[in-house]
Amino acid sequence: MSLERLRALREELQRQGVQGFLVPRGDEYQNEYVPPSEERLAWLTGFTGSAGLAALANDQAALFVDGRYTLQAQQQIGDQPLQQQSLSPSAISAWLCDNLKTGDALGFDPRLHTEPGLEMLKQRLAERDIRLQPLDSNPIDTLWSDRPAIPSGPARPHPEVFAGESSHAKRRRIAELLDDKRADALWLANPEVCAWLFNIRGSDIPHLPVALCCALLYRDGSATLYLAAAATTDALREHLGSEVALVHDKAELFAEARRQHLARIWVDPQLTNCWTLQQLRAMELELILDRDPITGAKARKNAVELAGSRAAHERDGAALCEFLAELPQAINKASADDSFGELEAVQLLRAKREQREGFTDDSFDSISGYGPNGAIVHYRVSPASSLPMKAEGIYLIDSGGQYPDGTTDVTRTVALGDFPEQARDHFTRVLKGHIAIATLRFPAGTCGEQIDAFARKALWDAGLDYAHGTGHGVGSFLSVHEGPQRIGKVNTNVALEAGMILSNEPGFYLTGHYGIRIENLIFVRESEQHSGFLEFEALTLAPIERRLIDKALLTPAELEWLNAYHRRVRDTLLPLVNENTQAWLQQATAEI
Amino acid sequence: MSLERLRALREELQRQGVQGFLVPRGDEYQNEYVPPSEERLAWLTGFTGSAGLAALANDQAALFVDGRYTLQAQQQIGDQPLQQQSLSPSAISAWLCDNLKTGDALGFDPRLHTEPGLEMLKQRLAERDIRLQPLDSNPIDTLWSDRPAIPSGPARPHPEVFAGESSHAKRRRIAELLDDKRADALWLANPEVCAWLFNIRGSDIPHLPVALCCALLYRDGSATLYLAAAATTDALREHLGSEVALVHDKAELFAEARRQHLARIWVDPQLTNCWTLQQLRAMELELILDRDPITGAKARKNAVELAGSRAAHERDGAALCEFLAELPQAINKASADDSFGELEAVQLLRAKREQREGFTDDSFDSISGYGPNGAIVHYRVSPASSLPMKAEGIYLIDSGGQYPDGTTDVTRTVALGDFPEQARDHFTRVLKGHIAIATLRFPAGTCGEQIDAFARKALWDAGLDYAHGTGHGVGSFLSVHEGPQRIGKVNTNVALEAGMILSNEPGFYLTGHYGIRIENLIFVRESEQHSGFLEFEALTLAPIERRLIDKALLTPAELEWLNAYHRRVRDTLLPLVNENTQAWLQQATAEI
Repeated sequence: MSLERLRALREELQRQGVQGFLVPRGDEYQNEYVPPSEERLAWLTGFTGSAGLAALANDQAALFVDGRYTLQAQQQIGDQPLQQQSLSPSAISAWLCDNLKTGDALGFDPRLHTEPGLEMLKQRLAERDIRLQPLDSNPIDTLWSDRPAIPSGPARPHPEVFAGESSHAKRRRIAELLDDKRADALWLANPEVCAWLFNIRGSDIPHLPVALCCALLYRDGSATLYLAAAATTDALREHLGSEVALVHDKAELFAEARRQHLARIWVDPQLTNCWTLQQLRAMELELILDRDPITGAKARKNAVELAGSRAAHERDGAALCEFLAELPQAINKASADDSFGELEAVQLLRAKREQREGFTDDSFDSISGYGPNGAIVHYRVSPASSLPMKAEGIYLIDSGGQYPDGTTDVTRTVALGDFPEQARDHFTRVLKGHIAIATLRFPAGTCGEQIDAFARKALWDAGLDYAHGTGHGVGSFLSVHEGPQRIGKVNTNVALEAGMILSNEPGFYLTGHYGIRIENLIFVRESEQHSGFLEFEALTLAPIERRLIDKALLTPAELEWLNAYHRRVRDTLLPLVNENTQAWLQQATAEI
Repeated sequence: MSLERLRALREELQRQGVQGFLVPRGDEYQNEYVPPSEERLAWLTGFTGSAGLAALANDQAALFVDGRYTLQAQQQIGDQPLQQQSLSPSAISAWLCDNLKTGDALGFDPRLHTEPGLEMLKQRLAERDIRLQPLDSNPIDTLWSDRPAIPSGPARPHPEVFAGESSHAKRRRIAELLDDKRADALWLANPEVCAWLFNIRGSDIPHLPVALCCALLYRDGSATLYLAAAATTDALREHLGSEVALVHDKAELFAEARRQHLARIWVDPQLTNCWTLQQLRAMELELILDRDPITGAKARKNAVELAGSRAAHERDGAALCEFLAELPQAINKASADDSFGELEAVQLLRAKREQREGFTDDSFDSISGYGPNGAIVHYRVSPASSLPMKAEGIYLIDSGGQYPDGTTDVTRTVALGDFPEQARDHFTRVLKGHIAIATLRFPAGTCGEQIDAFARKALWDAGLDYAHGTGHGVGSFLSVHEGPQRIGKVNTNVALEAGMILSNEPGFYLTGHYGIRIENLIFVRESEQHSGFLEFEALTLAPIERRLIDKALLTPAELEWLNAYHRRVRDTLLPLVNENTQAWLQQATAEI
């Protein structure tokens, strides 16, 4: 199948007069999760991970994926003629420089890329006299005969009881920032940014409760919002009020900018695709290219959002505990016919979450990895890959839920029976890293990259590490991966601020054997004792596997944190879980 | 004096048709230390710190300094009409936007700035329709009647017994990088870069053993080197050989580029001033703007340089110990008439270093801070500021030496008698930070900004911090502050690599009372136990003040490190110091 598609694509590229082409995993909104209509990378290569890029250059093709997806990509590409490479701007540039010739043109779909995303590549290719050529139409769309329709489900108001601030108030305070910058308008390139500003939600994208839209916010706080006609309801119109004009054709946004004689528009080049920038540049206006102010405002949750997140985490924790409590029995019952595996575990957990108030969707595809599959960092279980589970070894479950009051994301690693002895050392080192972040106090102004190594130190001491970040931002009934903050090796230059929600998820992966990850969501709060300092508070409530802990490796302070956390988990969740789970919870949170 | 200079400068700016002007602390080579002829900032403001910038805008003027210099600047600017501000691109931009008007022009000397250094300012000013105006001549030079001559002392060969690699070999391997980049030549903008590549040294700049020069390296490994005629000797010509052509007029470099029909020149915009870029741009050639490859090569010391550094540190440590051993006696002897103070301490230490083989100069102006002066982070003692020292309180001495085999930089904080009890807590927390860096193991690819917080954690725990970096790169008989690596909060995106020398210098400063800093030089080496991991090894040898340590705050592992370090200091230095110091050393390094 893929060979045929590759061949057809090469012919199409030849027709369009380019010698290479980029197939990113992304849509025109730079969404992480994309609707099925945008799954071009999976269509071409079979690779379904949430980050990746395929590149074609003359008669060669490569798939670039990051450390999380190395094993998954190997399995999914199989024997296709695709070189697998590490996903980094320098690796992509180097590969293209090697496989394109002087004078060649590398095609790309300007809707699927941002200018900063292409910057390094452009420079490297220019050194070889290879040019980047935006294509008017995406050659894959031409070939993809059964491409699904672009979704346009109904958009709905997100009530103030969850948002904690009216759209009117949000628009006013963002408009003040426009005033400071002497910008006439702000281009809202992305559905998440619109969802926050207008207090609307939708269901156009898997796991991300937004409607596909983009908008212009003006200096007086009024706005023009693009939303498909089919997505618009009377309730939504009423919610948006008279200050927000709706248009159902994207071109109307540019027309509106012209009609209003806007002179200076603020555009975030990180969020805005090349095609939009081309359109804006073709108009006679000045672009202020700077980080969009909404991403930061959205990241700092207000008191209502934080209270909502706490509440959602209690229900979500209760669901997870019921799942963990029932898991051994489910495995036991199916031991004769191996009928309970990773896939059935995901279904059981989903059923537990569905019983909880307000649950609308998983916040991402659950990672349910038993034994060696746990070592595939962002493994997505399929009927073909699902391993049957037994009362032995190690199981990793990373999952989350979308609730109107909050988005959750939690990983627990559990022992299903006997396990390799060295797993205790690995698990405890990961736990030490988790506790180091959980208990850290740090001065205002500190960025995630400055504290990431605390999560790794216990592993580094043993010459070990993990190939993913330690923490990502999390939205409020929005994306489970939200910027601008993160904790990782990559430089963000973004200070952690009070109200930001992050994950705390160090891990360790022994290829072919097991994966370990301990993930809580945490939020940043001001230190009560030390002015100018910040701390974290855990939101996630679920026991940490006691059987995998080597007590001798923990300091007294670490042990104290663990026991206090377990007391809190027990006291909060006991009233919320079924009787079977209550007994399990008592034991799973017992003092060490 | 300064009021008059400010007024004269304003008149000169008016004559040149600009409403503002920037006076950086720097020269055309982006040197940190500058010859007296380049001390324009000190001439105008009296501020003598090693980093800072004055800005004039209409009738206002401001001095921007970083956290290290806040107190010093306050003292030095006194009651001059200079607003003191924090040194950051955003603060400078904000101040200029506030004090210049739409349509104004901000003048600058294009020789004293780099384009990246002005980038943010340019953008912010453009938003207010204020333009940056390069001036043909520096208005301060017009006014500065007794400006010292530009130095042109003799340049001398740096023997291979210290450099460890011939200039020929260095030029060959850098030329290969030019080949990879398809660059015809590399512009060497900076005397340090030239000093390394050509294995030459000089004495044109305080504390930095280089001759003022710049050069062009060609793709075949040959080069054209600009050096003042007065700086050139026969020995130097012979050392440089036939592949390196000497010119004595900077314009000859541009002429040579033209004569050779160079098409593509590699220029580091971080090292190259705006004026040079203007000249190169005016020629018909292509500029490859990228990080210069020599800075990185220079930072990774070879085995000969590391052996040299060890040897230099032994002699330097012996000198420092003799100083520390004699200090109490010197203070005691002068107790009647207060005749021994911070300044006399610097002289005593200098005398001790001068007795050691190969000493050529201090590697920077010693920081000798007694009591409250210790809290001024980069305090430079003067006859006016020098406090008499007594047998009580806390004294901080940060100093270093230049030796042909290595450059040193060491800080010790000592108790001269009784001291405030809380100093013990502060000192021990600083020590814990120092040990955390000294004992860290980390994977290849780790940057300094990712490990900086380990040096601060024990302070953060108590709601404390310090307003400077933790570590800077150090040259080999070159600058005591050398890039590209550093350990600090600022993002470098530079991985620490085997052979790099850095300082490890956490501190704590209690304004009005005392300063604490513990600084060793360390170098990066590969871990023997864990492949792919790196560690540090200490170069500096000197006791860490035992009387200031609160043993109860140290973990067993920290205590073990301290005792092992002290054993090494004792064993290595005992044979190298005088008898009086031997007794002192035994006691100062005794097991805790």
